[in-house]
Amino acid sequence: MTHPDPFSDLISALNGEIDSTETAGVRIDTARRSRTGAPEVIYGRGKSAEQIAAAIQRLLPKESRALAARIEPGRAAEVEQLLAGLNLELAYDPIGRTLTASRCDSVSASTGGRVGIITAGSSDRPQASEAAAVLREMGCETLAMHDVGVAGLHRLVQPLRQILAFDPDAVIVAAGMDGILPGVVSGLVSLPIVALPTSTGYGFGGDGIGAMTTMMQACAPGIAVVNIDNGIGAGIMAGLIANRAASQRSL
Amino acid sequence: MTHPDPFSDLISALNGEIDSTETAGVRIDTARRSRTGAPEVIYGRGKSAEQIAAAIQRLLPKESRALAARIEPGRAAEVEQLLAGLNLELAYDPIGRTLTASRCDSVSASTGGRVGIITAGSSDRPQASEAAAVLREMGCETLAMHDVGVAGLHRLVQPLRQILAFDPDAVIVAAGMDGILPGVVSGLVSLPIVALPTSTGYGFGGDGIGAMTTMMQACAPGIAVVNIDNGIGAGIMAGLIANRAASQRSL
Amino acid sequence: MTHPDPFSDLISALNGEIDSTETAGVRIDTARRSRTGAPEVIYGRGKSAEQIAAAIQRLLPKESRALAARIEPGRAAEVEQLLAGLNLELAYDPIGRTLTASRCDSVSASTGGRVGIITAGSSDRPQASEAAAVLREMGCETLAMHDVGVAGLHRLVQPLRQILAFDPDAVIVAAGMDGILPGVVSGLVSLPIVALPTSTGYGFGGDGIGAMTTMMQACAPGIAVVNIDNGIGAGIMAGLIANRAASQRSL
Amino acid sequence: MTHPDPFSDLISALNGEIDSTETAGVRIDTARRSRTGAPEVIYGRGKSAEQIAAAIQRLLPKESRALAARIEPGRAAEVEQLLAGLNLELAYDPIGRTLTASRCDSVSASTGGRVGIITAGSSDRPQASEAAAVLREMGCETLAMHDVGVAGLHRLVQPLRQILAFDPDAVIVAAGMDGILPGVVSGLVSLPIVALPTSTGYGFGGDGIGAMTTMMQACAPGIAVVNIDNGIGAGIMAGLIANRAASQRSL
Amino acid sequence: MTHPDPFSDLISALNGEIDSTETAGVRIDTARRSRTGAPEVIYGRGKSAEQIAAAIQRLLPKESRALAARIEPGRAAEVEQLLAGLNLELAYDPIGRTLTASRCDSVSASTGGRVGIITAGSSDRPQASEAAAVLREMGCETLAMHDVGVAGLHRLVQPLRQILAFDPDAVIVAAGMDGILPGVVSGLVSLPIVALPTSTGYGFGGDGIGAMTTMMQACAPGIAVVNIDNGIGAGIMAGLIANRAASQRSL
Amino acid sequence: MTHPDPFSDLISALNGEIDSTETAGVRIDTARRSRTGAPEVIYGRGKSAEQIAAAIQRLLPKESRALAARIEPGRAAEVEQLLAGLNLELAYDPIGRTLTASRCDSVSASTGGRVGIITAGSSDRPQASEAAAVLREMGCETLAMHDVGVAGLHRLVQPLRQILAFDPDAVIVAAGMDGILPGVVSGLVSLPIVALPTSTGYGFGGDGIGAMTTMMQACAPGIAVVNIDNGIGAGIMAGLIANRAASQRSL
Amino acid sequence: MTHPDPFSDLISALNGEIDSTETAGVRIDTARRSRTGAPEVIYGRGKSAEQIAAAIQRLLPKESRALAARIEPGRAAEVEQLLAGLNLELAYDPIGRTLTASRCDSVSASTGGRVGIITAGSSDRPQASEAAAVLREMGCETLAMHDVGVAGLHRLVQPLRQILAFDPDAVIVAAGMDGILPGVVSGLVSLPIVALPTSTGYGFGGDGIGAMTTMMQACAPGIAVVNIDNGIGAGIMAGLIANRAASQRSL
Amino acid sequence: MTHPDPFSDLISALNGEIDSTETAGVRIDTARRSRTGAPEVIYGRGKSAEQIAAAIQRLLPKESRALAARIEPGRAAEVEQLLAGLNLELAYDPIGRTLTASRCDSVSASTGGRVGIITAGSSDRPQASEAAAVLREMGCETLAMHDVGVAGLHRLVQPLRQILAFDPDAVIVAAGMDGILPGVVSGLVSLPIVALPTSTGYGFGGDGIGAMTTMMQACAPGIAVVNIDNGIGAGIMAGLIANRAASQRSL
Repeated sequence: MTHPDPFSDLISALNGEIDSTETAGVRIDTARRSRTGAPEVIYGRGKSAEQIAAAIQRLLPKESRALAARIEPGRAAEVEQLLAGLNLELAYDPIGRTLTASRCDSVSASTGGRVGIITAGSSDRPQASEAAAVLREMGCETLAMHDVGVAGLHRLVQPLRQILAFDPDAVIVAAGMDGILPGVVSGLVSLPIVALPTSTGYGFGGDGIGAMTTMMQACAPGIAVVNIDNGIGAGIMAGLIANRAASQRSL
Repeated sequence: MTHPDPFSDLISALNGEIDSTETAGVRIDTARRSRTGAPEVIYGRGKSAEQIAAAIQRLLPKESRALAARIEPGRAAEVEQLLAGLNLELAYDPIGRTLTASRCDSVSASTGGRVGIITAGSSDRPQASEAAAVLREMGCETLAMHDVGVAGLHRLVQPLRQILAFDPDAVIVAAGMDGILPGVVSGLVSLPIVALPTSTGYGFGGDGIGAMTTMMQACAPGIAVVNIDNGIGAGIMAGLIANRAASQRSL
Repeated sequence: MTHPDPFSDLISALNGEIDSTETAGVRIDTARRSRTGAPEVIYGRGKSAEQIAAAIQRLLPKESRALAARIEPGRAAEVEQLLAGLNLELAYDPIGRTLTASRCDSVSASTGGRVGIITAGSSDRPQASEAAAVLREMGCETLAMHDVGVAGLHRLVQPLRQILAFDPDAVIVAAGMDGILPGVVSGLVSLPIVALPTSTGYGFGGDGIGAMTTMMQACAPGIAVVNIDNGIGAGIMAGLIANRAASQRSL
Repeated sequence: MTHPDPFSDLISALNGEIDSTETAGVRIDTARRSRTGAPEVIYGRGKSAEQIAAAIQRLLPKESRALAARIEPGRAAEVEQLLAGLNLELAYDPIGRTLTASRCDSVSASTGGRVGIITAGSSDRPQASEAAAVLREMGCETLAMHDVGVAGLHRLVQPLRQILAFDPDAVIVAAGMDGILPGVVSGLVSLPIVALPTSTGYGFGGDGIGAMTTMMQACAPGIAVVNIDNGIGAGIMAGLIANRAASQRSL
Repeated sequence: MTHPDPFSDLISALNGEIDSTETAGVRIDTARRSRTGAPEVIYGRGKSAEQIAAAIQRLLPKESRALAARIEPGRAAEVEQLLAGLNLELAYDPIGRTLTASRCDSVSASTGGRVGIITAGSSDRPQASEAAAVLREMGCETLAMHDVGVAGLHRLVQPLRQILAFDPDAVIVAAGMDGILPGVVSGLVSLPIVALPTSTGYGFGGDGIGAMTTMMQACAPGIAVVNIDNGIGAGIMAGLIANRAASQRSL
Repeated sequence: MTHPDPFSDLISALNGEIDSTETAGVRIDTARRSRTGAPEVIYGRGKSAEQIAAAIQRLLPKESRALAARIEPGRAAEVEQLLAGLNLELAYDPIGRTLTASRCDSVSASTGGRVGIITAGSSDRPQASEAAAVLREMGCETLAMHDVGVAGLHRLVQPLRQILAFDPDAVIVAAGMDGILPGVVSGLVSLPIVALPTSTGYGFGGDGIGAMTTMMQACAPGIAVVNIDNGIGAGIMAGLIANRAASQRSL
Repeated sequence: MTHPDPFSDLISALNGEIDSTETAGVRIDTARRSRTGAPEVIYGRGKSAEQIAAAIQRLLPKESRALAARIEPGRAAEVEQLLAGLNLELAYDPIGRTLTASRCDSVSASTGGRVGIITAGSSDRPQASEAAAVLREMGCETLAMHDVGVAGLHRLVQPLRQILAFDPDAVIVAAGMDGILPGVVSGLVSLPIVALPTSTGYGFGGDGIGAMTTMMQACAPGIAVVNIDNGIGAGIMAGLIANRAASQRSL
Repeated sequence: MTHPDPFSDLISALNGEIDSTETAGVRIDTARRSRTGAPEVIYGRGKSAEQIAAAIQRLLPKESRALAARIEPGRAAEVEQLLAGLNLELAYDPIGRTLTASRCDSVSASTGGRVGIITAGSSDRPQASEAAAVLREMGCETLAMHDVGVAGLHRLVQPLRQILAFDPDAVIVAAGMDGILPGVVSGLVSLPIVALPTSTGYGFGGDGIGAMTTMMQACAPGIAVVNIDNGIGAGIMAGLIANRAASQRSL
């Protein structure tokens, strides 16, 4: 497998061949997908509907698809209105709060990568859905099992067996209060685990700090951690692992 | 690829078929490598030479090789003396402070997995060496580039091109003060990055907290983080990614 | 260049020659601009429209211009109403939330100082606008480039070249999640960088703490940091640097 | 069961009937055992051998036994020398760093209370030994199982079954990096769990903070937590639970 | 007293004999009460009325009673409407924000366990009520004394004497600003104290952190601490202690 | 000067002579003023109007006056309605959010104590007003100077001279961002300074933490600190100092 | 009582009448005692014996006495040697680690101020001794009671009665683990309490943080807090209170 | 003034024209001075004498001078021995712990930039010396005033007047406990202030955290802050400001 020069976009920019001027105060990295294997994700928090719509429009000529995250339902409706009549397909996921826009002829090409997703509690689903959305954009297939806490170890049996039967290349484990779940799973399987702490929980160690700390201290070491509530980050990390493995399958 | 039942060791234990009694106060998980793909690593801090030697001896009948981490030079010499005459090959790495013991006929079987390692500063080498040691035990090949800070971006060019020419399945990036290095690398390549913060640095955000925080907040999202100075954890995470990819190559 | 005695206002006060009694609970430092080179800025948070209007009126006999910061749109409208009919020119910036009041014949005298402003993301604009407002009051010219993150290094090329073509005396770099941006810029130019962390970001290191920590730990050392969201502070620091340089040009 | 008035010692003191003057700067609570069911424990850190010996001598006329904690080996030898010739039996535990002194005819009366002790790692033994020492002084029987981490769940099977066969009234679970162990145990049994975080571990959440946070956030709620390394506190809490249960058995 | 195998549910699950599939995204541990002696508590925060109602319905075939916590009044009304016509008895406590559902023929069987509850201030009552609710479900009798701060020590006399006259097996002490109250009580009685810090208080150490810290550092060692505002956890810990003692009474 | 026995209330309670039963969940310390020299202050946050009114009514038979703090305007109106027709004089201070209730014939007896109050900014006035309210109840005279920051040292001259001309027994200095003000004042006068940090300020060290830290670290050592926003605490501390001094004047 | 102008030293300096040049890198405030009522205290940590000796020599012409704090025994001996032959009286207190130097004819003039000192544990004595040393220099009389923890409330009776019999103007209460002690004392007496947290204690809230937090949150509000281990600060605060009261006695 | 392309080194590296291979594990940025105006500083902590000597030798062919920081005296002697006979001039500053190496014919070219340095206490001198060393390497002239705390404001008069008479382009203010000093100075002059917090101080806010927090919160806004103890960073920031101003003088 031959990698492109990692600096090719930079060289193009140094030669003045990449246009990266602002649109509505936003400077989109239209080359990110080809360079890093992950789509440019529009981070919606604190952006107006106009900014989000402009960013989507800026991305679409280069890419056939765009993903925006942290979009509240009302904001999504505004964006959809702004983009109406442009022959785009828009899909909003109210759980994960992601908005996908694609040119109508576009499909996200499947890579064959596979990622399992496990959540400790039902309140960890939004972050898991965010991860699943970006994984779909990266061409990966996902299988999710929810509400698999360790307070009753036996509840782990059936979901974990199902996950393994799916033969994933990586597993995302999202947890807010039950921060040990990634460590327990890691101690049972020989797959890389991406731990996703969520801001569930209250009191000392609340807001995800406790979960993140537990994951960092876990004795079972086949895990690495992304920031609290960073479903996008967990999805991209797992997607890169899965797509690397899938690329080797197709050799 | 068919996975074994993740609960097979547990079932054996429930049936009384696994012996996990203590030896010198230590209860070794002799089945870890077959179950999780990673070796049981003996954590040396706070253990006496006798405890370390006993743990090595406990592991070796089941496994042909054993790895101990966080072993200071003096302690390593004591352990070596205790194990003398047992026909074991012992190798101590004074930079990474790891001690490898193997039955003389043993070699660590190569899996074909490949992991690149980049350090931001020369003081991040011990953690990188610790990661390399466990990667060797997992059968992976490694290529390391040191002292690649972002204070001068141009210093990144040659090492990163060399790393890509090696075609790794994953890249470990270790940094203490230059915590952004994993994010910069992640923004240039399409490979999973395991970020390893190190306890270099002083003042506010010193002892690795600043590096870890930077890595957690990084905008380039193809990275996941292990605990500060946890070279073993970074190595195992990268090793699992690489071995998964390598297993697909050999299909 | 001869400096006035730094204690001259203090001596005047000790001699009873400075009147600093309260007006509506506010004790304005009417001599600040002449003493420190920076205007007295009215900090609007937690102040009523009456207090803000009174403070502006207290300042204007001595100064021809007044600046109030952290003024929400509704509050600004109330203040404008209170000051109507006083022959003042009022300008409100809804992005930076600053309100400028000036006697109608007043212009902010240009000093010839030049400050470049770079933001990492579009959500860092309010703080940058606040800095620009106070720089205008200090007589400096500014040039701003927005949304220049390091997740794609190539996006930095064009904006940074434009900033340098402007030949600034200092550069403000505002960033919330991409806290390393000031360090990267500092590693490329020979100008003082004022780093302005912003309260963008979430999870561990969110609310600007991560950005500030990264800036404090940065390996490229030509930067100094102001408090999170303190656009006024960044502006005044950069303005003092620029005005010092400009004063030397005109010698 | 009739309790004595909880304020009887206070009433005695208010009537001037309790002598609590200082001896060598130490004011011993000679009535603590009868009032609270737990012995007065002499906290050795920062006390000279003379202070410790004086405290022991002050306690022994009222009590037949005395317990001192956090006594380094050298200090213990000094105390033993100071108390030589006083017809006392002295026992020092170098793991738990406790020193027990008793009048030669004294035995610690058995209450019939039973407490199980589980440690996650071999480095958690000192704290467990400290707890065991105070439990012996409270007349409880203990059974300890060591190095029972959850990285390999199967290692929990045999020790937990042995603990339950002992039919304890309470279980102490000590853990430094594997902070979830108390929660896992609590999810499997119907007994009160006293969680004892230990200062093992490094990096983010090191020095016991991570373990304590995990225990506080644990989803399995039948646990309560004592301070990091507070073996004495864990022992007394478990001892009070066990002695309450034992007192009901003998009714 | 013979304990059941702690792993029996796990063995059933490994044999495929326990059904733990999701209902409305929730995977209920229907066997928790028999295994751990404490009811499965539905944690209401962040769950929709539909999820809460489904969880209750899922539990009731196996259990005759269900308890949901952290249910705001409006949410409780919604749940009640969803469950109307199912022949269930529903009881909502607006102070503790708990909702109890039971089949109409069900009563919570009394175990004879007794738990005293003391609150430092009137604002600590919600957490105490939450604890009392779960204690009722565990079959324990409770006696509560409120607003017993130590700022006036004499206010402690009457309530503590009343608590002791009740002869409890354990005492819960809830406090937000007066974090020492558990320690003072522990120094006066020979009973295990479960300390429950509450999020009362402001400024440095506010939101319960100060109370929790004080409880952790308390010199009187017969106490153990649950997380801030975790009334459920305090209740279950005290309930397990009381039910253990009660089980010995009935031998 | 002869002090009463500090334990007299406790002895009365132990003899059953003090009635401290609950009223509407509140257990008032009716003897606090005579014992400690400070009034019992009803802390309003989280209390209903009914609870506050009941507490006032409980206090008034014993005391002729009552003070409630942290009462929002709407709550104050409710309380006033509940107490209408009881022949009480009610005074609400909307800045300090305190409510004073007194029997109509009552006046707060003057002690002759004098306390100076200095605030750094106009947003620190609420806390200063709270302190002034409790000082009035303690019979002290106060003189307040507002908005005396150190950004312009000369602004300190006139107010501090006025404060000294008042000849106070103690000085309260309240500051949120200008946390050094107590230290600067302490370095200029020979009077005890009570430092009152306020929750003004934002970013790193915001919410009063920065002010409190600065006060704790101040090099000029004649100051002691109360909790953030604790105007009541600052007032009582200063009132006790002033009343002690005043009591010596009248000897 | 007429106060001198607080700015008189400043005016002298502005007129060039105060000499404050460096000696051996130290710039002594020779006028502090007359201005603030407290001696200039030489902070020994990190200073060489030469610097300390030079500072003492610089102070003595103006003042007849000098106090140095945080002087380790070895350093004290070095200083004593450097000052030998200068006809000074030197007194070193090995518990409080203070060194007093005085011209041989000097006595510290008694003011008649009285300060009580209470320590919670014997390990809090060094800080209490430091406070006592500076109180002696301020002319106050002190009475100290040690090891008065609240784990046994009855131990408080005798010492507190003795303190009150001494009729102090203020009370210092030093505590490390038993941080509530100042609050309990404050709830029993009508005197200002200066709370001095000490760095005793371990684990969560160790190093004095827990004690300081408890003191900040204390419900009994007649207390104010100095920094951890700041015996000098506690002493000066209490000394200023006592000397103010004493000055009123002598009117 | 025309700036070079900030990306010229990067372009050279991309074209393979810059050699940045490792020497003894260190990859020196030989082009830093020309690109950023600041020398590459060798950070000595955690480097062996061999590594430091190799780095110096690597720098000297390109640069005529090299600066190493954080070099303990013993390490400096080792480095000097390793470099003996190479015709280099070596200068070690034991206060600032910096080591300068220069080719014998080299002088640091003066730029005409001027920087004032003020320290709050004598223990802040090491950091100030570190800053002065790097300023000398940048060609700036410095004037330092030490031990200028604000506990006695009058001590500030003479030093600040001397600093202004020097007519500096920027002022560094270093402080550990007296963190407000930069703010006070900033409120008196119209020059940019670089605030350098130092790790002096103890207790809450010790180790420089308090000073840094105070500086971040300072109301006088013409200051920016570098990390605790980062004398190099403060020096380079001030040097860039001064050299920018100086470059304008010489136009």
